[in-house]
Amino acid sequence: MKLFIAPRAPNPRRVQMFIAEKGIPDIEEVPVDLNGGAHRTDEFRRLSPHARVPVLQLDDGRGLSETRAICSYLEGLHPEPNLMGRDHTERAFIEMADRQAEWYWMALIAQAIRHTHPGLAPLEVPQFPEHGKVQAQRVRDSAKRFDGMLAKQPYWAGERFTIADITAFTSIEFARGLLKFRAGEEGFTHLQAWRDRVAERASAQV
Amino acid sequence: MKLFIAPRAPNPRRVQMFIAEKGIPDIEEVPVDLNGGAHRTDEFRRLSPHARVPVLQLDDGRGLSETRAICSYLEGLHPEPNLMGRDHTERAFIEMADRQAEWYWMALIAQAIRHTHPGLAPLEVPQFPEHGKVQAQRVRDSAKRFDGMLAKQPYWAGERFTIADITAFTSIEFARGLLKFRAGEEGFTHLQAWRDRVAERASAQV
Ligand SMILES: N[C@@H](CCC(=O)N[C@@H](CS)C(=O)NCC(=O)O)C(=O)O
Ligand SMILES: N[C@@H](CCC(=O)N[C@@H](CS)C(=O)NCC(=O)O)C(=O)O
Repeated sequence: MKLFIAPRAPNPRRVQMFIAEKGIPDIEEVPVDLNGGAHRTDEFRRLSPHARVPVLQLDDGRGLSETRAICSYLEGLHPEPNLMGRDHTERAFIEMADRQAEWYWMALIAQAIRHTHPGLAPLEVPQFPEHGKVQAQRVRDSAKRFDGMLAKQPYWAGERFTIADITAFTSIEFARGLLKFRAGEEGFTHLQAWRDRVAERASAQV
Repeated sequence: MKLFIAPRAPNPRRVQMFIAEKGIPDIEEVPVDLNGGAHRTDEFRRLSPHARVPVLQLDDGRGLSETRAICSYLEGLHPEPNLMGRDHTERAFIEMADRQAEWYWMALIAQAIRHTHPGLAPLEVPQFPEHGKVQAQRVRDSAKRFDGMLAKQPYWAGERFTIADITAFTSIEFARGLLKFRAGEEGFTHLQAWRDRVAERASAQV
């Protein structure tokens, strides 16, 4: 299998971290130059019609895109360590936490960066900086809410590390780099403690 | 179990249509007045911390939010008719199609409407109409792509009706109402034919 990624892009990194947690050895990484527009060619769109990374190309040639769908497939192939839930109730609550990390954390961070950062100008045409600033404010509103959640539980979905922590962690690292967001300095001490806990995992080094 | 909804809101409607497809009889619907801000009270946030509908309240009192997580839970309780995939490969490809319907269809439609329609002004503060117009253009770009896909397959995820059709259908109906989007009139005949096919299902009448 081949995994199409882009260096430093948060969505591919989610899959890379998931693979590292599972210890799956046999997936070849293929970098795609997003700023150069390599993902918008007809050839790449045959694999990923919406021109996005990551994409997992299966051995039969089919392209499986969408970060969480790729993880579902890999969890099916390599069930342990479990990252997405053991029965349908746990699976649903972890999916809830993972989606909350996507919609009320990653998506806000991504929008804030895409509409304000010069480095993302080739991907977000046109940028609306005022809109980006409102999103950056919403990142703080969400940080407050997640900080309160992490005061009561060690991980994003509860007592154990799951896929939701991967989504949230790759996002906070993206915000650290490009939004200069530092949870602790802004008073979100539980969020910072969680981030530091996850940053120590071997999978966080990918 | 209780399902908190808002009349005419597309995300609750996804769950209502999913329930109708499954024929699940025993879920009580509780309407929430979004324009009146009933979802932003402390009481509602205890059930849905990010102040969103739908939320499924389980019999033990816990709130399960996020549309697709609620559907995963209900699919676990009521496996037939299957709407989310039978093995891990099919589940992953249906999840891909469902996420594409969410990210490159529903989210664009929702952003276009939220930033331009006066009826959504209480929920989207401040509105950025210029940003909304760019999203409305992207709705057309996506319509073209999905129209091409539906020229080759009858349903959003392939040969059979799945959760991805529910996500895409509730979105196109939202766009019909509030963006005045008519796929056929804009030349997207395969998209229109698919929409009309789904509109005939009993579950589309909810
Ligand atoms: N919903 C997609 C999002 C993927 C995505 O947006 N990836 C970014 C890189 S992090 C991308 O490909 N961007 C290309 C572009 O914006 O043109 C997923 O879950 O995989
Ligand atoms: N990611 C959520 C989205 C839910 C959502 O945005 N629901 C809308 C109604 S369709 C809502 O509650 N809006 C309230 C608001 O924007 O304040 C899900 O999948 O359920």
